Amino acid sequence: MAAWGERLAGVRGVLLDISGVLYDCGAGGGRAIAGSVEAVARLKQSHLKVRFCTNDSQKSRGKLVGLLRRLGFDISEDEVTSPAPATCQILKERGLRPHLLIHEGVRSEFDEIDTSNPNCVVIADAAEGFSYQNMNKAFQVLMELENPVLISLGKGRYYKETSGLVLDVGAYMKALEYACGIEAEVVGKPSPEFFKAALQAIGVEAHQALG
Amino acid sequence: MAAWGERLAGVRGVLLDISGVLYDCGAGGGRAIAGSVEAVARLKQSHLKVRFCTNDSQKSRGKLVGLLRRLGFDISEDEVTSPAPATCQILKERGLRPHLLIHEGVRSEFDEIDTSNPNCVVIADAAEGFSYQNMNKAFQVLMELENPVLISLGKGRYYKETSGLVLDVGAYMKALEYACGIEAEVVGKPSPEFFKAALQAIGVEAHQALG
Repeated sequence: MAAWGERLAGVRGVLLDISGVLYDCGAGGGRAIAGSVEAVARLKQSHLKVRFCTNDSQKSRGKLVGLLRRLGFDISEDEVTSPAPATCQILKERGLRPHLLIHEGVRSEFDEIDTSNPNCVVIADAAEGFSYQNMNKAFQVLMELENPVLISLGKGRYYKETSGLVLDVGAYMKALEYACGIEAEVVGKPSPEFFKAALQAIGVEAHQALG
Repeated sequence: MAAWGERLAGVRGVLLDISGVLYDCGAGGGRAIAGSVEAVARLKQSHLKVRFCTNDSQKSRGKLVGLLRRLGFDISEDEVTSPAPATCQILKERGLRPHLLIHEGVRSEFDEIDTSNPNCVVIADAAEGFSYQNMNKAFQVLMELENPVLISLGKGRYYKETSGLVLDVGAYMKALEYACGIEAEVVGKPSPEFFKAALQAIGVEAHQALG
């Protein structure tokens, strides 16, 4: 207890996952996990800085936050670190124009991105969008590039839907990696850069954070 | 030349690939590659034993041979080694009942296989059949097994269609491998067992064969 007390004494910030921690996704938007609405409220009343950190790549931050607010959470868009905005920053910094293999729900995050004459592929959890046609199109774009760049929003293996387990973006990322003989760049957890960006947003150092 | 002469002197059999060697697939069934019809005829008139060895997992041997005969080739079903019959033999030997993620064109090869209450997954080049739903279904079957067995008919990365490059079964095999944390068993080239079975069919030893 003493050790924990000492450790907590130095803690200035908390990173909270969203899906599976705050709420379970499912039909009708999902539902809050018992006690989580109150826990977030208490954390935000404390001296701790709070940042929400998710690998959800199916929804824009706006949609995700709207859903969470309806479930009772005190949360706003600028408190969320998610892979789509982090990817947009990378695309801009490196002059990359993506072919997007993504879910319609997250497309608005890429509104300001130039997608003409693509020189890379961005893959996210496209769900139904992972059709044979769409996978072939992404593959063909990569094969036509001299230096194929594949950026993957997370690399999850699978997750649970109300209908059962479903493949996550990581599985389709692996398919493209194998077919093209390349390695994807992963944006999102567990990438250290992603956690670092989340902590920077609340001005907290890694050793001062709980996740 | 002497070395070649000596080597050829010992040759008793030839393994011939089909797609890309005898014919190019494409709209309307494809077309024979220049000189290949005559080359097969000459080989079969020689003292050499000939076996056709393909990784094509979209078509039954019946369909494939029908197509090749229409293109002018002297070929019959029992001269073809292909992954589907080899897989059926493995399934029978090991008491495996597959969930089939395959192309409709090859389904007849599995007519005699018990597919009730599956205890493994067989994946082949399903083309349009590689939908999000079908991939999830195969994934779910694997995840429900205590010892997930995934058998893949070949592990090709991609191949050329008239419409351009398309993903081959290997890419989707990798997706399932990654999601389930397993390794597939590959039936077909480049598996040594597959070549061995093709040579056995013509009673030729590996050192007596050209491929």
